[in-house]
Formats: sequence, structure tokens, C-alpha cells
Amino acid sequence: MEKMNLAREAAQLTEFWSQRVIASGNGNLFKVAKGIGSTNWHSHDDQDETFLVIEGRITIQMRDGDVELGPGDLFVIPRGTEHCPVAPEEARFLLVGPEVTSNAAGGKPDWSYAAGTSPEDAS
Amino acid sequence: MEKMNLAREAAQLTEFWSQRVIASGNGNLFKVAKGIGSTNWHSHDDQDETFLVIEGRITIQMRDGDVELGPGDLFVIPRGTEHCPVAPEEARFLLVGPEVTSNAAGGKPDWSYAAGTSPEDAS
Repeated sequence: MEKMNLAREAAQLTEFWSQRVIASGNGNLFKVAKGIGSTNWHSHDDQDETFLVIEGRITIQMRDGDVELGPGDLFVIPRGTEHCPVAPEEARFLLVGPEVTSNAAGGKPDWSYAAGTSPEDAS
Repeated sequence: MEKMNLAREAAQLTEFWSQRVIASGNGNLFKVAKGIGSTNWHSHDDQDETFLVIEGRITIQMRDGDVELGPGDLFVIPRGTEHCPVAPEEARFLLVGPEVTSNAAGGKPDWSYAAGTSPEDAS
């Protein structure tokens, strides 16, 4: 494979809350994504989900409290744990897990399926 | 778990080429390390090894050429591929893989076992 620069790969994304695989190793995918606004509450019963923030800030809402993440912060959401990531402003991040989870079951909001939109565009 | 900041965790390392586990997910460990000078040529037959540079620059020497990595660059060394990471100046990085590999079989140089030393100190 070639090397991948996280910021450069994330800058090419068009759709919010949509993961793009840039590499894989030991059964896990390395995926870049960008977010704005809120996802929907969800959990992954079959996999842990690791967030690593590249740019901006993300709040991982969980039932027992929020975790605020900024650039360089890594956080693992254990399998089965309900969570709802939100980004007050655009944030870019790396996700590590065995599958692409940017789908309805993975909390992806309906408005984000239209490329280039944000919550405001869709309202 | 708590969130972990990569730069902050890597800044606490004392020994070069020694991995410290900061998180785990889906059978993989997230490990910070710092390097300077050269490791020894080696390969991991049982696991892929992912590098993500936090600070500085690392060259991943391989038998078919070198890959130069800077901050934010991610690179996966496939299992069974001989490699020899070198860092002209101190570099800090994240490694992802199922085991800690900072040992002789993983290319860790003898001088690095003495905490706080660099190749020059040991010579």
C-alpha cells in the first residue's frame, strides 16, 4: 500500500458522517470521516469503535456522560455501548473498526446522505 | 476508558523504541512509541503493523524501497514484510497491532533498553 495522510484524505470527503476506508490491518479498517451536527443514538453490538480526531472537536455523548475530543484525542467506544457523536462545527476524524458503520444502524442521520449538505442545508 | 491524547502520552515515554499501550479495540492495541536512530531489520509473520506519525519523521526502510512518513501519515506494513524503521531525529508515533512488538524480534536495538539513552549516549 501507499502511505495515507489523514488530513489530506479527510479533506477529500464530500458527505458528512460517511466513512471512507484508507487502509486495513489485522481485520480492522482505518476510515476517515467528517461530521457536523448530530448523529442518532446507536450502538454496535459486534465491534468496538475507535475515534481519533484529526481536526475540530467531537463530543461523544453516552448515557453516563459526555466525552469531549479534540485533535490527537483517541477514544474507544466499547461494543454494546450506546453513543451519539455530535460536532458543533465541522470535525474530521479517523475511525478504526472491522466494518464500515456509516449507515442508519450506525447512527448516520438522514440528511447526511445528500452529498455536501449540512443540517442547515437540509432543513 | 478515558480519552487519550497521542502527543501527551508519547511525551511521557522515557525509552526509545519501546511501545506503551494506551487503548485497545477489536483485538488490536493502540501503542505510542518514540524513536531515534535505527532499529534492526525484522518482520512480523503473524501481524500487520500500522504506523501513524504524531511528531517528527520516520523512514520505513523495506527491501523494495523506503517510505518517508511525517505527521499524520499512516502506513501499514503487511505481515511477513521485512522492514527497518529509522528516525534521523526524534520521532513520536502511534502503532496499531495485536501485540507489543518492542523487543529484539521486533527490531528493538540493544542500546535502547537503557532508559533515556540515544545511539550517541550508548556509543
